This record gives sequence, C-alpha cells and structure tokens, in this order.
Amino acid sequence: MNDTISLLMKHRSVRKFTNEPVTEEQLETIVAAGQMASSSSHVQAYSVIAVTDDKLKKELSELCGNQAYIAECPTFLVWCADLYRLKTITEEHYPDKKAFVDTTESFIIATVDTALAAQNAAVAAESLGLGIVYIGGIRNRIEEVTRLLELPKHVYPVFGMCVGHPDQQTMLRPRLPQKAVLHRNKYSTDAVNEVSNYDVTMSRYLSERTGGKNDTPWSKLMADKLTQPARIHMRDYLKEQGFELK
Amino acid sequence: MNDTISLLMKHRSVRKFTNEPVTEEQLETIVAAGQMASSSSHVQAYSVIAVTDDKLKKELSELCGNQAYIAECPTFLVWCADLYRLKTITEEHYPDKKAFVDTTESFIIATVDTALAAQNAAVAAESLGLGIVYIGGIRNRIEEVTRLLELPKHVYPVFGMCVGHPDQQTMLRPRLPQKAVLHRNKYSTDAVNEVSNYDVTMSRYLSERTGGKNDTPWSKLMADKLTQPARIHMRDYLKEQGFELK
Repeated sequence: MNDTISLLMKHRSVRKFTNEPVTEEQLETIVAAGQMASSSSHVQAYSVIAVTDDKLKKELSELCGNQAYIAECPTFLVWCADLYRLKTITEEHYPDKKAFVDTTESFIIATVDTALAAQNAAVAAESLGLGIVYIGGIRNRIEEVTRLLELPKHVYPVFGMCVGHPDQQTMLRPRLPQKAVLHRNKYSTDAVNEVSNYDVTMSRYLSERTGGKNDTPWSKLMADKLTQPARIHMRDYLKEQGFELK
Repeated sequence: MNDTISLLMKHRSVRKFTNEPVTEEQLETIVAAGQMASSSSHVQAYSVIAVTDDKLKKELSELCGNQAYIAECPTFLVWCADLYRLKTITEEHYPDKKAFVDTTESFIIATVDTALAAQNAAVAAESLGLGIVYIGGIRNRIEEVTRLLELPKHVYPVFGMCVGHPDQQTMLRPRLPQKAVLHRNKYSTDAVNEVSNYDVTMSRYLSERTGGKNDTPWSKLMADKLTQPARIHMRDYLKEQGFELK
C-alpha cells in the first residue's frame, strides 16, 4: 500500500478543530488540487467560497442546523455548482442564442464537477495533516444561504466542508462489504444480501463508539432516515435558482 | 508539496492503454479507496460495475459514442447512483411506509456520493501507476446501457471510467485561474472576468497540442457547447428509472 492509498484508507470526518488557522498557502494548495480533478468536457462548472469571517461562519452554522463546528473551524468551504460563469461567457459570444443551463443534464454535470473537485481538495487537505467534514446541512435552509453568500442565479451550494487542524481522534467507520457495492459485468440485485453481515459489523461499531448505549444496525438507521421526508424544498429552490431540471 | 498533492497536480486523462490487465488486487484496492470517501449520513448510495467482458465493453463503447478506448481499456468501471439498496432495506424494515427515494434531494445525495467515491478511486488508481478517464458518454444512450447492465429501478449510471496502464503521455491541461473559482466570504460575479486571461492560456495550449491547427479560446469552445442541447432525454429517463426529482 502506497502513501496515498494509506491516506485515503484512514479518512474519517473531523468535527473538532484547534484554533490554528488554515494558511493562505494551504488554502490555495487545496483548491489547486481540487481544480486538477476531471471535469466534464473541461467545463469546470463549480466555484468554492472560502468563508473565514467569524460572523458569517456563525450565521452559516445556524443555517446548517446549528452545527457548532462550522463556526469553530478556521475555514469553511462552500462548494457550489456553477453554471453562471458558463452562461455569462456564452451570452457574450452569442447574445441571441439560448444557453442550455436549465436541463437535468447540465445540473448533473455541474453537481458532479463540484463533487470531484471537492473530493480532490479533501484528499489534499488530509495529506497536509488537516481534517475535514462535508456539510450536507448547507441544503437545510438553502435559500437563506444563497442570499447570505450572494450567489447569483445558476449557482447553488451543493455542500459545505469544514477544514482545520484536527482536535479529536475518531474511530474509522466501517464501510459496506465490497461485495455489496462492487458488481461484475452486470448489476446483481443479490448484492443487497450483503447488508445483513454489515448490520452486525455496524451494530458492534456503534455500540463501541457510544459505550454500549446504541447498537442500532445500519439498515435500521437507513430505514428510519429514508422514511422521513428530507429537504423537500430542493426542487422548488433549484427551479427558482435557474436550475429547472428540464 | 507532498507525494499525494504532487500526484493530484499531475492528473491528466488517459485514453490509450497497454494490454496489461488491471489485477483483481488492484481493482479491490481502488474500490476500497473509493468506499472510504465521505458519504451523506453514511448512506453509501452508489454501486460500481467492473466491466471486463470484451463483448460488453465493445457494446458499451458503441453506446458511449464510439469511444474506442472503452473497448480497449482492460477494466471499464460504471459508477452508478444507487437508491435500490436503500429502498430494499427500508421496505424490509417498514413494509407499509414510503421510502423517499423519489425526491430531488435523494437524487443529489446519490449522485454526489457516487462522484466522491469515484474520485477517491481515481486517485487510488493513479497512485498505482494506472491511468483513468471519466466517460460522461455513458449518458448518451443511457436507457440501452441500463438494460445492458441490468440496472434495477432507482439505479442510474452517472459516468463510466476507463482504467488501465497508460500507453500515452499527454500534456497537462491548464485549469481556470484560481481567482475565477475561489471566492472569499461571498460570491463575486467579477470572478468571471478572469476568463479572458484563461482564454489566452488555453488558446496557446490548444495550438501547441494540435500543432497549430486549432487555437479556439476556451470561452468560445464553451459557448459552442452550451448553445447545443445535450442529452435532453435525461429528465424522462430518470423519471422512468424511479428518480422522479420531486
């Protein structure tokens, strides 16, 4: 196992940070590494907002479901799918033509581009000894976040990411058995049967992590989650924001 | 710059591969690294199909727009957003409840989870000396791909990825200036002005790569692309496949 794979294999989310800042050089290195990820036809349909202003971080922390570590981390990155840049330059070249930024396909392209860049950035951050955690909670009150960060139409925040120096040691969280996710030549619906073994693993993990207080199997946690509606405002929000998903 | 960042910074897509196979051990390492990426609330809403069967690869190559390197690479990975697994286990726990797998939010979660895992896998593959290229063309004739790979409802192929031993040396493709994508505390619409410098850079790069035959600036290439409708079948396809984007 080489150093890079060894780094990837020990990833865990960090939710507690020291006061030490992320330097400007570190930030630029992290974002540069993000930019080197693949992008659909080189469209580079993403932007990232580095939030270091304490007041803004505090407001975002509240908007993301009162996750204190957003206020506490030195740098909070907001990764945005960005079709504004592409629409603007398209209109400069072709003032009379329509730019196809309102399709489901363009939404997928921008969302995937953002995620690929962010994951490269996450790996780069961890290679520098920093810790990160993705914040899906940015979509909780996404309209307010959009206004707060002054996002123009055709830009939406896909997720946030806390970055900072770790001030905690957490356990590695076991992943699904590889047989559950890796299929050979065709999709196998039998792969779902692997979940029962994983339930045993995760039940044990959770029990250990909570000092015996909780040993709910993974599939039960997922079922509880999936039977609750979540962020059902996203469709209307996206439409309003210029992502019509046509 | 450490080894991992140095690896990330030299990424380029590889579209020509030697005959040397990707070993089973390499494949398992790559997918294991992919699995270690972050996942929204640990839902792990993705699957990956490793296609090594020559006939299948040839068919996929045709379905993806006759990209020969899909048939030629030893292993073609099809990265799928997967809500089938979650829906199945939810129904086992709660036969009478509805699983919210038809929302725009669940679509985003599954798509992002897939991209994060795939990018980790790409980094792992490159750290092993392998080369990769993402294949968005998997969405060209996505219904046929879905049938060919026997994807159940609530699973869709987000992109493919050729993996193999590189048989070409390509130039690093310059990325947008960092100022175009990295914003401070708020989104700056002025950032789009950075594109004019990038046009000069990319025009020079393209000219060099094509021996002077093509020096179209990036913004013009993008404008030409954006004014053409692309994969407008995605909305209907996704609905049919159980992703209603409600």
